[in-house]
Amino acid sequence: MNTKKGTLLVVSGPAGSGKGTVNKVLLENTEKYVFSVSATTRSPRPGEVEGIHYFFMTREKFMSLVEEDNFLEHAEYVDNCYGTLRPFVEENLAQGKNVILDIEVQGALQVREKMPEALLVFLCPPNYATLERRLRGRGTETEEVIQERLKTALTELQIAAQYDYLVVNEDNKAEECAAKIDGIIDTRPEKNKEYILDFIKNFTE
Amino acid sequence: MNTKKGTLLVVSGPAGSGKGTVNKVLLENTEKYVFSVSATTRSPRPGEVEGIHYFFMTREKFMSLVEEDNFLEHAEYVDNCYGTLRPFVEENLAQGKNVILDIEVQGALQVREKMPEALLVFLCPPNYATLERRLRGRGTETEEVIQERLKTALTELQIAAQYDYLVVNEDNKAEECAAKIDGIIDTRPEKNKEYILDFIKNFTE
Repeated sequence: MNTKKGTLLVVSGPAGSGKGTVNKVLLENTEKYVFSVSATTRSPRPGEVEGIHYFFMTREKFMSLVEEDNFLEHAEYVDNCYGTLRPFVEENLAQGKNVILDIEVQGALQVREKMPEALLVFLCPPNYATLERRLRGRGTETEEVIQERLKTALTELQIAAQYDYLVVNEDNKAEECAAKIDGIIDTRPEKNKEYILDFIKNFTE
Repeated sequence: MNTKKGTLLVVSGPAGSGKGTVNKVLLENTEKYVFSVSATTRSPRPGEVEGIHYFFMTREKFMSLVEEDNFLEHAEYVDNCYGTLRPFVEENLAQGKNVILDIEVQGALQVREKMPEALLVFLCPPNYATLERRLRGRGTETEEVIQERLKTALTELQIAAQYDYLVVNEDNKAEECAAKIDGIIDTRPEKNKEYILDFIKNFTE
């Protein structure tokens, strides 16, 4: 049983970074990782479950939670509010889980302000050419959308300089990226010594 | 071209830790890693090549290099001397290569004294039962040898508390361990910021 406080892991990365797949690999270890469920003011879509996909709430409720500083970050898109509930994150951290937060760079910097011990990881394709190839490879977006995403990626990448770690996702290397991130979590300088001593103590058990 | 100084990576771990395989995976990236070639006073065996397997030398030469503080660590086994040549390591580090040193714990601590910036990684099976299973699974050693190795492993593990990082090698996870170690190298706190800024700068090139 791990009763040490978990780490809030913020994973950002442009469309085409493979972030979703890497997070999925990490989340396979359900003992160790849990995905942060966002709050939203939008209506549930068919099949969406309260507490699994989102915490659904009215705008009034959302705003009162904002007032009470209950969000680690929040933003509005297309007339709906989305946010990360501090109590959800803190309860999971207290249980020793690492909480994965999949958000874009502005939200990530908000989180860091509210919770400076959060670990910010930026996932990135090895280079621009690869990013472009991946975005075109989907074959589902218009040229305008692709150009927009490339531009956004370059802007986001500039903000990655403020992240704790940058992990490069080569083609088909989601498992390795997940292992790298998992390694970073286990061996964070401030937790590393404790981790090693614990491992040694439990080795023969 | 990487012209930043490389990292001296010391990898230790008990028999059964899978250290050899993990090092082999790292060394596949020949741009980034090079294996440290030891000096020895023993005679070459058939097929062993000077500068590839060992630097072969007389005991007199070896001792004069010891006198001149040209070894990062050295030891004597069965009447032969073995050691890690400081100039070999430093030349490769200067070229931006990470030098992998596969040595046991006593040697590793010697290296740290001579080169405090070395990164000491201890590779370990997940628990004692797994270690025992792996050692027996080889089917080539006597019970006495196995018992001896198990005892040695526990002693070494105690010294792992002095290492920088401990990486757990689950069964058939050499690739993931190599990725973890590679990640640790890329993101060492003292080099991480530089690494991220460089990556951003070169992304579109």
